[in-house]
Amino acid sequence: MVAERAREAGIRVVAVGFTGNTDPTLADHVDVFEMVHLGQLSKCIKFMKANTADSVVFAGAINKPKAMDIRPDLLAAKLLFKLKGKGDDAILSTVLDVFESHGLNVGDPLEFVPGLATPEGALTSRQPTRDDLEDLRFAWPKAKAIGEMDIGQSLLVKAGIVLAVEGPEGTDAAILRAGELSSKGCVLCKVYKPGQDMRIDRPAAGLNTVRSMIEAGGTCIGIEAGRSIFFEQDEAVALAEKHGVSIIGLSSEILGLGS
Amino acid sequence: MVAERAREAGIRVVAVGFTGNTDPTLADHVDVFEMVHLGQLSKCIKFMKANTADSVVFAGAINKPKAMDIRPDLLAAKLLFKLKGKGDDAILSTVLDVFESHGLNVGDPLEFVPGLATPEGALTSRQPTRDDLEDLRFAWPKAKAIGEMDIGQSLLVKAGIVLAVEGPEGTDAAILRAGELSSKGCVLCKVYKPGQDMRIDRPAAGLNTVRSMIEAGGTCIGIEAGRSIFFEQDEAVALAEKHGVSIIGLSSEILGLGS
Repeated sequence: MVAERAREAGIRVVAVGFTGNTDPTLADHVDVFEMVHLGQLSKCIKFMKANTADSVVFAGAINKPKAMDIRPDLLAAKLLFKLKGKGDDAILSTVLDVFESHGLNVGDPLEFVPGLATPEGALTSRQPTRDDLEDLRFAWPKAKAIGEMDIGQSLLVKAGIVLAVEGPEGTDAAILRAGELSSKGCVLCKVYKPGQDMRIDRPAAGLNTVRSMIEAGGTCIGIEAGRSIFFEQDEAVALAEKHGVSIIGLSSEILGLGS
Repeated sequence: MVAERAREAGIRVVAVGFTGNTDPTLADHVDVFEMVHLGQLSKCIKFMKANTADSVVFAGAINKPKAMDIRPDLLAAKLLFKLKGKGDDAILSTVLDVFESHGLNVGDPLEFVPGLATPEGALTSRQPTRDDLEDLRFAWPKAKAIGEMDIGQSLLVKAGIVLAVEGPEGTDAAILRAGELSSKGCVLCKVYKPGQDMRIDRPAAGLNTVRSMIEAGGTCIGIEAGRSIFFEQDEAVALAEKHGVSIIGLSSEILGLGS
């Protein structure tokens, strides 16, 4: 998605995909493509440089893998060793530093394709119900606190009860877990982590988020406006409309929570 | 367990079990027993009064059920309606009030059977490793924060990464989830929620906690000393020893975190 929009904007796209995480058909939408294993950091950088890339943009979700699935090369292994005992944020920002130290500027995906930012307010014609909004107001400060502790970006709430806190399993798995625990009607609140690097790991949602919410019997997807990425917005909104799910771009102002 | 110890202390035990939650063989260890469905609050109270109980003690875990599995009677339905949108704490303390308003004193299980309190320090002969202790120190303030938000009492951590935050699914499910996400070696940190009513919903662990940790490949169970209940301590410690799991009664002092 980021790749397509970037090419529309006349940018030459050199892409690296990760086995088990990236859809290989991405190759059809970019100029040069290579698939690597998660952890093959040197290979990424060499491929980028060989193809005269000057900027790197991180886009798309990585299913945080079991340790077994990573194949760190020497460069990645050194980093991991140094980072032992640190959370996502530390790992990601160190990876950024490595790219930059190799002369690759790390860009913000929303700078390349600002149209992917989640707008403020309801994206669906169906507005969140009063109950949904109340749950989002309840969830917002908790989701921010969870983010500040570098635990995750999302919370699932129903009727003032936190059903699930997203951990390394990712948003979709947390949504489905909440669905198991509630008989219907949970709300997703996904936020930008205070202090998070805007260039990487921005909160994101998309068609899959809607699919998971439908499966979980959820009623409303709330995701921080402006700072988050919403992939496949048209398809996602259309599917949400069809299943009576609302989507709303959140801010503390829109929730009446001050800032 | 609580029932047996209370009887050893010469107390007549009138017990109510909950279908799907309480082992029916509890009947063999008490003086009078009735099984009810979760939510049959009037029935509980009537049975207690009919059997001239004067104090009520809450002991044993309730698997927080899907809404479908609760069968609230009129009294419970009224409460649930009033409590719509509140977390565990509010629900539990309101239930306590109802018992007390019916002349049933709500007691603290650890007053009846102080021997069930988790002692401070290692319960197993195997001490937690340095890595385990580091993860417990990392987890403790986060677990407290999660508790303060009325989300849950437990966190699973490995190498400075929070693998799972316990929600309504309960500690065992959170442990198993962490096991799925880590290739081995997670640590459980279960704490007393700041502000929690000591008479009900004290943090608890026991033989099942050890079993779950073994299944998840976990290395250390840390649970707040003094304020938490440790059921079946001897069996739990024996099983933990056998599988190289350590158990430690935590305090902020023992973790070197001040108070």
